[in-house]
Amino acid sequence: MSISPLAPATFPDLPAIEGVTFAAASAGIKKADRTDVMLALLAPGTSVAGVFTRSATRSANVRDCQAKLAIVSEGPAAILVNSGNSNAFTGKRGDDSVDALCKAVTEICGIDPARVFTASTGVIGQRLPHEKIIAKLEELHANQGAANIGIAAKAIMTTDTFPKAAGETIMIDGAPVKIAGIAKGSGMIAPDMATMLVYIFTDAQIGQSDLQALVTAHTDRTFNCITVDSDTSTSDTLMIAATGATGVDVTDNADFTDALHSVMLDLAHQVVKDGEGATKFVTVKVTGASTDADAKTVGLAIANSPLVKTAIAGEDPNWGRVVMAVGKSGAAADRDKLTIHFGETLVAEEGWVAPSYTEEAGAAYMKQENIDINVDLGLGSGSSTIWTCDLTHQYITINADYRS
Amino acid sequence: MSISPLAPATFPDLPAIEGVTFAAASAGIKKADRTDVMLALLAPGTSVAGVFTRSATRSANVRDCQAKLAIVSEGPAAILVNSGNSNAFTGKRGDDSVDALCKAVTEICGIDPARVFTASTGVIGQRLPHEKIIAKLEELHANQGAANIGIAAKAIMTTDTFPKAAGETIMIDGAPVKIAGIAKGSGMIAPDMATMLVYIFTDAQIGQSDLQALVTAHTDRTFNCITVDSDTSTSDTLMIAATGATGVDVTDNADFTDALHSVMLDLAHQVVKDGEGATKFVTVKVTGASTDADAKTVGLAIANSPLVKTAIAGEDPNWGRVVMAVGKSGAAADRDKLTIHFGETLVAEEGWVAPSYTEEAGAAYMKQENIDINVDLGLGSGSSTIWTCDLTHQYITINADYRS
Repeated sequence: MSISPLAPATFPDLPAIEGVTFAAASAGIKKADRTDVMLALLAPGTSVAGVFTRSATRSANVRDCQAKLAIVSEGPAAILVNSGNSNAFTGKRGDDSVDALCKAVTEICGIDPARVFTASTGVIGQRLPHEKIIAKLEELHANQGAANIGIAAKAIMTTDTFPKAAGETIMIDGAPVKIAGIAKGSGMIAPDMATMLVYIFTDAQIGQSDLQALVTAHTDRTFNCITVDSDTSTSDTLMIAATGATGVDVTDNADFTDALHSVMLDLAHQVVKDGEGATKFVTVKVTGASTDADAKTVGLAIANSPLVKTAIAGEDPNWGRVVMAVGKSGAAADRDKLTIHFGETLVAEEGWVAPSYTEEAGAAYMKQENIDINVDLGLGSGSSTIWTCDLTHQYITINADYRS
Repeated sequence: MSISPLAPATFPDLPAIEGVTFAAASAGIKKADRTDVMLALLAPGTSVAGVFTRSATRSANVRDCQAKLAIVSEGPAAILVNSGNSNAFTGKRGDDSVDALCKAVTEICGIDPARVFTASTGVIGQRLPHEKIIAKLEELHANQGAANIGIAAKAIMTTDTFPKAAGETIMIDGAPVKIAGIAKGSGMIAPDMATMLVYIFTDAQIGQSDLQALVTAHTDRTFNCITVDSDTSTSDTLMIAATGATGVDVTDNADFTDALHSVMLDLAHQVVKDGEGATKFVTVKVTGASTDADAKTVGLAIANSPLVKTAIAGEDPNWGRVVMAVGKSGAAADRDKLTIHFGETLVAEEGWVAPSYTEEAGAAYMKQENIDINVDLGLGSGSSTIWTCDLTHQYITINADYRS
């Protein structure tokens, strides 16, 4: 698989987060020569929060993490992730695998099983060979290092074409506070792979419930605003760990919130840029809606429309399909109040193509790698921004021709 | 464009409906050598009912028809349809075109404008050259014939690869009652084409409000249960006209209801079979849901999933993607109560792949042209059936490479 044309030029320099160490290993879940397990250890007192898929068929690991986040503890914690097998739709055996993994981490690393958070990503419906992972735990424990986050980012990849990471360092009360995150995801579901994982670490100090509220709010404007193919994975997991090592309290701190949002948005954009078959990065901005919720509904209708996405793949300024998607969305809309711009180019207004618009201008705009579709509904002040990619032959090749 | 591999072998023999005549003409809206306008005239006393797109950006013609159906009239009626231009998103000019067309039909055919129902299908956002249609009205009026329904079916085609029609003759109280219908549609939206049109005619006698209730109820189980690409057109129109020429009252008649349902379902299936790029006809049957509405939600989530549709295109028995679609649908579901069959083959049950299932059996099943995906949720007695097609390279070619 060649690297996505939308991939960043280089892997970012990430700040080391005091209180967090990482290691990766090859357990033989994926191909023998690739790392496929990562273990992160978190210092005592770390606040851990998370956001998970709402799927009714979510994996055993997701259910286990959700239950554990409700437990308050000051002890050390661990995050154990494997790629190559999702442990989703594996019945009672899936629950047994999670329990076995947590028990082994407790034995080898001395961490309360209630503080061990696991995730599995890869093929659906095959038993997870958890004994292979357990056989690597001693090695993972021995090799822990604060600088190993890039190695961890690679170990959680499945069909990703590049490892995804983002970081920020900000000054709060004269002290540096650091945030570093890694993600994997390539389409909402890669071929048989159950999918997006995000881990973010910071040395800031913040209570668990404040951290949970913060990450929930910002997920709604970052990861919940990206779409590749409208499909939802059974394993989507986003976790954040605040070690408090700096002693800097960031509760209700606007600078920290902005920096966290920036890291989350950067990671979310990288997931879209590694979308299966993607050749264009598309920003759909909807303004003038009756409510923010309506704006998001319209934005998702445009971003998920196969006809809009194929038009972008074909570099076709097919604004009629944007009109269609607005109309079908179910949100309040009025044909004659709708204004559509492609980038700066006014395309349609007052229920009609704009007199100034030319197909040549539209076609020239569509040749860019970054496409902005701006829709103003002219009804109120609700707004939302959604990010997506185009729908190409390569998507069909990856997903239909997978076995051939 | 070659004919869909799923097209029926022959155009059906349709019964002539007393009280309805048809004519078609070439007005030059589409290519010069193709018919692109059809006029149907309906005898006095005909009940007319209809179901339309719910799009907020629906066309001027749709809005006009919706307003007119509320008017009770015993006079003759007319249906005028052009292909090649959808008159959608054409602003105030679109309303003017509809008014001009209705006025011209009144002058030439002597029909109250409140009883003239128009539809336009084709390119979005270009002014409808209604004067070209008006110039053909004398010819359309002069050439009316009861046997011309097949000619009418051809005149309303846009990117359809075959004309769509279905008919039934049933005996009620010893008298033959006939139903004949025509449809166009090829994907929810063909390239720039705004889309599905259906016209059904019968010589049965039934009041307008009863006819409306009947067609609304059966649309929910036929045309509202098909999906090609989850997109919704700005022009979808289904109209039914009951001339009453037989004098046979079919109010609350089960035989008539069954026959009408059969005609509607046959036409709906033909639209799916002409879905853009379709190579497989897929029936998704959901049972055991908490409610019928939940069953439909699950069925549509499966039928609209790009990952399920590409797997079918690739003849890949990828049941994990069906599990994913059930989970994301939002309907009540329990992993461990879910049972999935591909045709007669048990694939998954009790939260796990079925012990009897083999990939060879699944792969062999997927080679068929007609694919049945049967999902039982094991929760209640709600059920629904959805029909769709696969998502192929040809869909991308038609919709992305349209300009090249």
